[in-house]
Amino acid sequence: MNKKVAVIMGSDSDLPVVKGTIKTLKDYGITTEAHIMSAHRTPKQAMEFASNAKSNGFGVIICAAGKAAHLAGVVAAHTTLPVIGIPMKSSTLDGLDALLSTVQMPKGVPVATVAIDGAENAALLAVQILAVNDDLLTEKLLKMKEDMAREVLEKDKKLQTEI
Amino acid sequence: MNKKVAVIMGSDSDLPVVKGTIKTLKDYGITTEAHIMSAHRTPKQAMEFASNAKSNGFGVIICAAGKAAHLAGVVAAHTTLPVIGIPMKSSTLDGLDALLSTVQMPKGVPVATVAIDGAENAALLAVQILAVNDDLLTEKLLKMKEDMAREVLEKDKKLQTEI
Amino acid sequence: MNKKVAVIMGSDSDLPVVKGTIKTLKDYGITTEAHIMSAHRTPKQAMEFASNAKSNGFGVIICAAGKAAHLAGVVAAHTTLPVIGIPMKSSTLDGLDALLSTVQMPKGVPVATVAIDGAENAALLAVQILAVNDDLLTEKLLKMKEDMAREVLEKDKKLQTEI
Amino acid sequence: MNKKVAVIMGSDSDLPVVKGTIKTLKDYGITTEAHIMSAHRTPKQAMEFASNAKSNGFGVIICAAGKAAHLAGVVAAHTTLPVIGIPMKSSTLDGLDALLSTVQMPKGVPVATVAIDGAENAALLAVQILAVNDDLLTEKLLKMKEDMAREVLEKDKKLQTEI
Amino acid sequence: MNKKVAVIMGSDSDLPVVKGTIKTLKDYGITTEAHIMSAHRTPKQAMEFASNAKSNGFGVIICAAGKAAHLAGVVAAHTTLPVIGIPMKSSTLDGLDALLSTVQMPKGVPVATVAIDGAENAALLAVQILAVNDDLLTEKLLKMKEDMAREVLEKDKKLQTEI
Amino acid sequence: MNKKVAVIMGSDSDLPVVKGTIKTLKDYGITTEAHIMSAHRTPKQAMEFASNAKSNGFGVIICAAGKAAHLAGVVAAHTTLPVIGIPMKSSTLDGLDALLSTVQMPKGVPVATVAIDGAENAALLAVQILAVNDDLLTEKLLKMKEDMAREVLEKDKKLQTEI
Amino acid sequence: MNKKVAVIMGSDSDLPVVKGTIKTLKDYGITTEAHIMSAHRTPKQAMEFASNAKSNGFGVIICAAGKAAHLAGVVAAHTTLPVIGIPMKSSTLDGLDALLSTVQMPKGVPVATVAIDGAENAALLAVQILAVNDDLLTEKLLKMKEDMAREVLEKDKKLQTEI
Amino acid sequence: MNKKVAVIMGSDSDLPVVKGTIKTLKDYGITTEAHIMSAHRTPKQAMEFASNAKSNGFGVIICAAGKAAHLAGVVAAHTTLPVIGIPMKSSTLDGLDALLSTVQMPKGVPVATVAIDGAENAALLAVQILAVNDDLLTEKLLKMKEDMAREVLEKDKKLQTEI
Repeated sequence: MNKKVAVIMGSDSDLPVVKGTIKTLKDYGITTEAHIMSAHRTPKQAMEFASNAKSNGFGVIICAAGKAAHLAGVVAAHTTLPVIGIPMKSSTLDGLDALLSTVQMPKGVPVATVAIDGAENAALLAVQILAVNDDLLTEKLLKMKEDMAREVLEKDKKLQTEI
Repeated sequence: MNKKVAVIMGSDSDLPVVKGTIKTLKDYGITTEAHIMSAHRTPKQAMEFASNAKSNGFGVIICAAGKAAHLAGVVAAHTTLPVIGIPMKSSTLDGLDALLSTVQMPKGVPVATVAIDGAENAALLAVQILAVNDDLLTEKLLKMKEDMAREVLEKDKKLQTEI
Repeated sequence: MNKKVAVIMGSDSDLPVVKGTIKTLKDYGITTEAHIMSAHRTPKQAMEFASNAKSNGFGVIICAAGKAAHLAGVVAAHTTLPVIGIPMKSSTLDGLDALLSTVQMPKGVPVATVAIDGAENAALLAVQILAVNDDLLTEKLLKMKEDMAREVLEKDKKLQTEI
Repeated sequence: MNKKVAVIMGSDSDLPVVKGTIKTLKDYGITTEAHIMSAHRTPKQAMEFASNAKSNGFGVIICAAGKAAHLAGVVAAHTTLPVIGIPMKSSTLDGLDALLSTVQMPKGVPVATVAIDGAENAALLAVQILAVNDDLLTEKLLKMKEDMAREVLEKDKKLQTEI
Repeated sequence: MNKKVAVIMGSDSDLPVVKGTIKTLKDYGITTEAHIMSAHRTPKQAMEFASNAKSNGFGVIICAAGKAAHLAGVVAAHTTLPVIGIPMKSSTLDGLDALLSTVQMPKGVPVATVAIDGAENAALLAVQILAVNDDLLTEKLLKMKEDMAREVLEKDKKLQTEI
Repeated sequence: MNKKVAVIMGSDSDLPVVKGTIKTLKDYGITTEAHIMSAHRTPKQAMEFASNAKSNGFGVIICAAGKAAHLAGVVAAHTTLPVIGIPMKSSTLDGLDALLSTVQMPKGVPVATVAIDGAENAALLAVQILAVNDDLLTEKLLKMKEDMAREVLEKDKKLQTEI
Repeated sequence: MNKKVAVIMGSDSDLPVVKGTIKTLKDYGITTEAHIMSAHRTPKQAMEFASNAKSNGFGVIICAAGKAAHLAGVVAAHTTLPVIGIPMKSSTLDGLDALLSTVQMPKGVPVATVAIDGAENAALLAVQILAVNDDLLTEKLLKMKEDMAREVLEKDKKLQTEI
Repeated sequence: MNKKVAVIMGSDSDLPVVKGTIKTLKDYGITTEAHIMSAHRTPKQAMEFASNAKSNGFGVIICAAGKAAHLAGVVAAHTTLPVIGIPMKSSTLDGLDALLSTVQMPKGVPVATVAIDGAENAALLAVQILAVNDDLLTEKLLKMKEDMAREVLEKDKKLQTEI
């Protein structure tokens, strides 16, 4: 049976963006658990969750946080599971602070960082990771790639009639 | 049997850094294939490699490139495998160009980006991905985490005698 | 007869800005073909288009893309035609990501980059390129320069009555 | 009796700079304890140290870390003591990553951030904090301010003879 | 008796953000004095205030300023009290100018810098500083940490019913 | 007969990099004229050169300048020829100042900007522009692309024996 | 009799901000001439104006421009008068492009740069320059400084009644 | 008789660059006084100097400082003389911190900012300011402009023999 994916956000203000992550995971039939946990406000819960995630059946942990975004790094420190970080844009600096805080991890503790506010891509990356040993998921990813291509081709065709 | 990991670099000038990726993968017993392929100079080879990587037994593709680093994105466009991007520092802008070119991927085609010049972490992330369904690799990762911790503790102990 | 100019955008969301490119080209009487093609979602179409562009009568290809803007670079990898890149501003980082992804091309594959959201200038640059061997286009460019100057002079004159 | 100050660095490679912190604290007669502890490699030790620092007689904790510098934030999450962060310059981005990772802390968990590589100032800030209720330390700080001023005045005087 | 905290802002336009500082200080029962003083427009008042702050019973000075934010540095030059700087976001550059102007202080004159617009954290840092020798304040800080954690846990629980 | 290409640099200190431009143009058999002219120190010469370039048989003008790099823009203001800008890295800011000064041209006066210090690519872009109506040059460009690809493939082959 | 001040803006879109410059100059009784002139669209007018400015009775030239802001530099190349540059914020990059294009002038041709959108300060700087040999203007500047201080003091007094 | 120019640097480490300022001023026959004064370490001296500069016969004050460069702003707060700021590059951030700290002055207190490490240009700007009412200085500036142009022309001529 497929591993679960955890989606942890540092604040409930991240939810509107992170909903894109949860929805995409569910579209792929992934059992998803979403949590609000903070590296700074509930560090114990975050660490416990990370420490037990593998034995609790998770295969990937996705962490979304803004500003000095430590959540993904702190979670990654406590698990051997791949951890995906979504740097969240907040009120200043356009997310550059969150991007650098998430991606510039020191040797030994990687975080797989996606684009600023890259909610759907974080989910897709988790699916790609689970698909390494799951042909059904690979099929779904291939179909998504075809759908994406078809959608672009249709938009291109429509453009020809408009311009 | 374990999937292989491919390590692709955009230029042979990336090799001194990328050697850290290859060495780390080998330390974990991962069958590793290294290539020099360029999104701009040998795009066909890069795309063919990406398109066939899954059927050729690869589980993860790591791409290292500098400046307008398109390699990871172009490879990711042609595979459902997780693609890890290493933004390489080059002669100007301290790698910020490569970081943004690698991480800011549009919806639908994620690249799992690690730190600028984060050669070892790219390898570790690949191992973590393969370890999702491989308890032996997980054991090795746990041992590495313990070794890292012990090394820091020993340095701390040594520091007490020096200061 | 004049070569055609192709205007490729990575996403239909780029169209409001890119319309300025298309309109300017048409104002100069350039036969223009506009397409939505993505380096990541329809890479094959983009590459085929680029590979055949010269034999299909194109003289210049203009590519508009945002975020990790690989489109211009990928197209440039598959053609000897001059490729003009328009870095598009998207939801974060004010277009700096697209600018660096477009302009910082490695040795061997240049992209002629214009300003962020520089839609009209991309068109003008294409016209300048075609005008190298076309005196009629040069005349039109000279007239445009004169019109621009006259417009500024008239605004300056009007300013004198207002202040 | 005076509270102690802890100086924690994320890596022994930070020591050459952090020595300036330790020396300055000792110059002020502050009992100083220095440690190498990592938010990512020895998170448990870091958290335990932070959790017990107050009851162990510490008044201030200084944390020095580079890249995605989470150390100060993680320590601050586990103590009510003031935590001072020194963003360390590392091999890329000139310390901007460490600065943003240290200073942009979310509401509820402040880190008192000093300049990139600001080793001495971190120590002085710790002394200023301890001096709030310690007139002797205040005297020393006033004397240091006078010494600094005198040194500048003497250099200015010397300059007059040279230019 | 507890020391007072001064909150100085460079312009009345900073007040909407700085109110968060004042409110937080009052929530902790800190006697707070707020002032509008400018390093550039009322430098004498700012310096006199700083010079006399300690003898007037202040324990910490918080300074909020935007753009070329010199206020905290100028105040710090005239006191041995810990000075906390809040870099204010203004109409351009997203507060990066104020951040660098506040945090990059030269050796000898530290400013304890918090996040851009980090009004509440500046207050909390001041409370943490006063709490070094005040167990009652420490109790309040511990309770705040618990409240923060509980609030996150409740939001997490609520999330489970929504997703 | 082929148009000439002008290579103008703002300072003789740019020559070591700009030599790559001149050499590449000569490799393609382009008649090349190189000049040191400054938008600020010899503005009249620069403008006169630009104004007469077309009638003097030039097809493209390449301008290399650092810092507040106005040269390409000033030249472009006085010609309808395509102007290629090379932003030069100088002693500070890693060439970001020259990049923005070169690429962010206002509507009406485009500059085809290449990478920071992108000397060879500026030459190649000029060749591509001249090749729009010159099949021989196109042949040479195609051969260069093949050579580049072959070189990468050989390096890749060599890598297989080394790793 | 007092020298005149010229205020040149690159585009009429700069007028809403530049009005602050003109109004401030008039408040000081400076004879002011305002123009729309572009370094790129009406370069001849800009250069002629600059070349003749001194003999036409001007003492200072203020130039406001956005994006690749070459106006101040081009004007400064053609006059020995002090040239003040106002970098204008435009649709992207928050004015950083205009700031660097204005301030990073090469050796020999300085531009006195004020803050992004610093319209009033450009005027005040011009007044300060004219006041070097004009005691009446100095009196006005001193009075302005006093007014500024009084205004801040009154706001501070009012604040005491509100908080 | 001509006004004097003051050159103030925040630290003696600025002297190697600032010597270029002093030398250029002397080349123009300007009576120059150089000082080491710090906004943070000798604030009283800096303010006193600024307050009395006009009555002491100075016409312009040049301030050079690095990092959180407050010197020019603090001096400008205490004088009506034009103040020129030289942002100094220091060990991190390539002088961007000093540039923003110097140029982004709030309304009412301008600083005429030149390029990072722009020592000679600061001197030239001071000369230009003094030359507004001094025809002899204007002559010297015109001659310098001619010399600069001739030097470039000679280098251009020499280049023709080399390439």
